[in-house]
Amino acid sequence: MSRLHRLGRAGEIAAREGLDALVISRPSNIFYLTGFRGGSRLISSPDGEALILVGGVDLVAAEEHFSGSGVQVVHIKLGEKLDDITLKVLEDMEASSVGYDELPIGTYKRMGKRFGAEGLKDVSKHMWELRKAKDTDEIARIRRACAIAVRGMEVASELMEPGMTELEVVGEIEREMRRAGSERHPFNLIVASGKNSALPHALSSDKAFKPGDLVVVDIGATYEGYVSDMTRTFIVGEQEPWQEELYDIVLRAQEEARKAVRAGVKASDVDAVARRIVGNAGYGPYFVHGLGHGLGVEVHEPPRIGPGVEDLLGVGYTITIEPGIYLPRKGGVRIEDTVLVLEEGHEVLTPFPYGLRPGEEP
Amino acid sequence: MSRLHRLGRAGEIAAREGLDALVISRPSNIFYLTGFRGGSRLISSPDGEALILVGGVDLVAAEEHFSGSGVQVVHIKLGEKLDDITLKVLEDMEASSVGYDELPIGTYKRMGKRFGAEGLKDVSKHMWELRKAKDTDEIARIRRACAIAVRGMEVASELMEPGMTELEVVGEIEREMRRAGSERHPFNLIVASGKNSALPHALSSDKAFKPGDLVVVDIGATYEGYVSDMTRTFIVGEQEPWQEELYDIVLRAQEEARKAVRAGVKASDVDAVARRIVGNAGYGPYFVHGLGHGLGVEVHEPPRIGPGVEDLLGVGYTITIEPGIYLPRKGGVRIEDTVLVLEEGHEVLTPFPYGLRPGEEP
Repeated sequence: MSRLHRLGRAGEIAAREGLDALVISRPSNIFYLTGFRGGSRLISSPDGEALILVGGVDLVAAEEHFSGSGVQVVHIKLGEKLDDITLKVLEDMEASSVGYDELPIGTYKRMGKRFGAEGLKDVSKHMWELRKAKDTDEIARIRRACAIAVRGMEVASELMEPGMTELEVVGEIEREMRRAGSERHPFNLIVASGKNSALPHALSSDKAFKPGDLVVVDIGATYEGYVSDMTRTFIVGEQEPWQEELYDIVLRAQEEARKAVRAGVKASDVDAVARRIVGNAGYGPYFVHGLGHGLGVEVHEPPRIGPGVEDLLGVGYTITIEPGIYLPRKGGVRIEDTVLVLEEGHEVLTPFPYGLRPGEEP
Repeated sequence: MSRLHRLGRAGEIAAREGLDALVISRPSNIFYLTGFRGGSRLISSPDGEALILVGGVDLVAAEEHFSGSGVQVVHIKLGEKLDDITLKVLEDMEASSVGYDELPIGTYKRMGKRFGAEGLKDVSKHMWELRKAKDTDEIARIRRACAIAVRGMEVASELMEPGMTELEVVGEIEREMRRAGSERHPFNLIVASGKNSALPHALSSDKAFKPGDLVVVDIGATYEGYVSDMTRTFIVGEQEPWQEELYDIVLRAQEEARKAVRAGVKASDVDAVARRIVGNAGYGPYFVHGLGHGLGVEVHEPPRIGPGVEDLLGVGYTITIEPGIYLPRKGGVRIEDTVLVLEEGHEVLTPFPYGLRPGEEP
């Protein structure tokens, strides 16, 4: 399960950009390159030399993970400063130009004094570029994270009864996903009912479901460092015609947008398919976010799927497709799947029935 | 429940530092100053003018929250860039000097071109300074978040049976805390058994408890934006003498360190009390982290309670006291409470019995 073969890719970036060293701080980049969850900074050279800087809380885990790998584990002791050690390591490497993925501004300014503005280069785009297309191992983990989320959604779909509260349902979903192996909730799960369903980033509360409530359920799981993301919208009791109308439009937008997904297509063109359907139905102003986003180690990774995004989708990209319509103070509908981009189409990784009452016979 | 009266404090910082505007990006700072959860940036002037920049996902919630407040809600439309709008707003305000709490480096460089290095000032320390001492309203919320975590710990303590898995217990705790009103898990809960208990940042897995396992349970809850944090360590089955010894040392360190907590004492002096007890017992090298940290809107806020930290504790600070001893590949013990700093001592906000088997008669 070691991911240390990827460390060479950091070296390649350094070599290609003519940099003496890379300083990687973003936890998801450190995990991507090494398979290690933890550590404060990874420093690597074009010839493959690498050091991981860790605090005491990660030291034992790091020594086990990197044992025999050639990666040097540097212990930042209590009272020592990460930036001091970082600069010392770079000095020992005789680096005069450094690539970074992200840094606090204070650290950036301090490194600027040492290396000059020309000696500091932002390589975050290159790191994201590496991470866009997932390999077989990554897809297997995302697939598993998706299967766990589907289990959570099954539980949710059976709890759409008046009197249940948003937070009670969140708790039941979380319990099920933990039992199914989710090692972390990749974001704060959303169960949003009634007029809260019109808030895309609603916070769940102890508000009880009432008959006629739309309920947006947006959940995800994590398996061996990789995440999933899916949304369904349910009805409590009987739906009204406007709710059915919203649902049908969003579902059509989601299905047609998915059909447009394949390698080589522009992200903005996929977004446009959904946006046109919602717009033609007269709800354009109520589709207030992009159509989706890449996901992998993080729940939001490039590319965004939205207006103006020129990125072409590629084989092995894992993205969400999640149109929504939100009528303020009334209610909202969102339908989201995680999908895998293929040469000639896509695969839905979060298969779960659509419909306001998926458990019922039609 | 509006927190808008705090906006004036941002204005005071700007006035005191001679800045024409503050650009606040850290979500917890935006929440602290406005009570609004969401929004991309808050821009305020010394005379109290303020604008909140929000994407479409937060627009309706922002318009409701800030209605009638005088704070202007600026909608960042799909395809517009946050940095473009930020600079436009600052231009409209005729600002020539700007304070920031945090910015991506790219944004910092772009703003540097506009305002010069002298026209840009890091005010993050001032923001943290404001947030250290909690007011009555904040303490009430933290108290409630602590009570919810205590409920979770009760559930955990009853599940210390062979065959239960770490993730199953996490799921039961989460379910209970959600039912008790936790709106968000402030961090990924830790249930770490056996040799995993020796990893302070362990990730829970489907590993089943075995007789003789130490189990570290580190959990927290969120209530109206404020968090709690507590840890207990339990035993599955019968403890061995070395486990009892570790537990007694850590408990003594925790109790004595708590007794040292009062307004006016130096953070490093509180840490030293615990570190001396652990060190005298011969386990100094295995207490691999600081003694604790402030908490409030975020689970880690200044001050750190650790070696070398000169900050004095003040009335109304809420901090954790959490010594631990971790014997690699063997097992670990951590005991943590959230405590409120008082003029003449402290109050434990996470009251829960100590001991490897808190449920049993002595």
